[in-house]
Amino acid sequence: MRLALGISYNGLAYQGWQSQASGQTVQDKLEQALGQFTDQRVSTLCAGRTDSGVHALMQVVHFDTELSRPASAWVRGPNALLPHDIAVQWATVVPPEFHCRASALSRRYVYILLDSPVRPSIDTGRVGWVYKPIDLNRMQQAAQHLIGQHDFSSFRASACQALSPVKHLTRINISRRGAYWRFEFEANAFLHHMIRNLMGCLIMVGDGRKSPEWILEVLAARDRDAAAPTFSPHGLYFVGPRYEPCWGLPDHPSLLDGLPGAPQ
Amino acid sequence: MRLALGISYNGLAYQGWQSQASGQTVQDKLEQALGQFTDQRVSTLCAGRTDSGVHALMQVVHFDTELSRPASAWVRGPNALLPHDIAVQWATVVPPEFHCRASALSRRYVYILLDSPVRPSIDTGRVGWVYKPIDLNRMQQAAQHLIGQHDFSSFRASACQALSPVKHLTRINISRRGAYWRFEFEANAFLHHMIRNLMGCLIMVGDGRKSPEWILEVLAARDRDAAAPTFSPHGLYFVGPRYEPCWGLPDHPSLLDGLPGAPQ
Repeated sequence: MRLALGISYNGLAYQGWQSQASGQTVQDKLEQALGQFTDQRVSTLCAGRTDSGVHALMQVVHFDTELSRPASAWVRGPNALLPHDIAVQWATVVPPEFHCRASALSRRYVYILLDSPVRPSIDTGRVGWVYKPIDLNRMQQAAQHLIGQHDFSSFRASACQALSPVKHLTRINISRRGAYWRFEFEANAFLHHMIRNLMGCLIMVGDGRKSPEWILEVLAARDRDAAAPTFSPHGLYFVGPRYEPCWGLPDHPSLLDGLPGAPQ
Repeated sequence: MRLALGISYNGLAYQGWQSQASGQTVQDKLEQALGQFTDQRVSTLCAGRTDSGVHALMQVVHFDTELSRPASAWVRGPNALLPHDIAVQWATVVPPEFHCRASALSRRYVYILLDSPVRPSIDTGRVGWVYKPIDLNRMQQAAQHLIGQHDFSSFRASACQALSPVKHLTRINISRRGAYWRFEFEANAFLHHMIRNLMGCLIMVGDGRKSPEWILEVLAARDRDAAAPTFSPHGLYFVGPRYEPCWGLPDHPSLLDGLPGAPQ
């Protein structure tokens, strides 16, 4: 029997999603809780591996098990065993053909940026930070150049394991509320560090250090050195994957409403 | 020379505002940073002492000093020395008659409540939590009974040092966005634990355990045992004091926009 779970977590205390010898990753904590709950070894796959310090509103994982328990038990049981910054939001039986990574049509991420002369305090670890004003129009122009299918090699970390640097970026929405900017990204898939590298470039355009057209040069270079440095992980949230409705996964609850700077 | 500072902090890691032998309070961290910055002993007073785990968007403190530095230095200097979850937002010279506590006309607090079958994860330490649905109309009816000048002894912690239990509560606004409720409180002053005790009662009315009119009984009893248990500190934010414009304190920046569940 194949089970899918929706998981949300604050990534601040963890060395990313992917299991490591240290045991200090979200996958380690989840598999430990599932192992304790089932009294069996549970190995999970996830829809989007997040970096150290990156958060998730709705990570989706799947695993196979012989154990038959009601869906509510697969939520409450692990939640009683997980650390306070990781929670199972839902659990559901899926067909054996479902694969949380391969079945995903697209992935969505949000980046929250505090634009303030003073560094974050209440929001520390939950937002990126710029102290210079940034301009919406300039960033929107730059974002338009990024939409579509491109070779994103300039925005790809050297450690990236993706088979191809060509990805289809379908959406960048930029909005602000007070001092809080919200950048929404959607693509069929993202390269390692891709959003943090895009954020670094959008900010350089926004604060006037680069022109919106500079993004075209960066894309064309297909060279990591052409782009801005990798921006902070702390404002990055994996909103979750999208799947065909036929898989019958639950709708995502309104966890986006909990992020700083919710749209008016 | 008297200086006023606006301070924001995430209270999760601290044993409240007020200095203690442990040194693990916001006042201790602030006075340590100010002492290091000025090379002198600095003693601060604050507008509203917050409990362990309670946050502040704009705490206001004042202190006297012989040192003449530009206002920007009083912001940047301490911020380089403060922990990452405490920041000075502004600094300004005030007349010697200004007193951050005595000059405050009113205090504002916000309580953020996550209403979800699943406990907080991304927001852990930043929101209170209920797992049963709560009803806006019932809570608004109860809140109406609380508005005005009352003896709030039923909502007062035994350790409270206020001279009088009579306070003037001028505003309770309740709104929601998705799973996040926002409760706004304003009063001339609050008793120790008063908002957390009010929240406990409003939730008991909201989830149907008590009627809106029960609040009148609780008020009339003037007995702590008549009210609900003290609710979690984690969703509580001191928004800040209000002063006469004549003191010339800066307007509060839009830090409220960073809280979960900002109004639509």
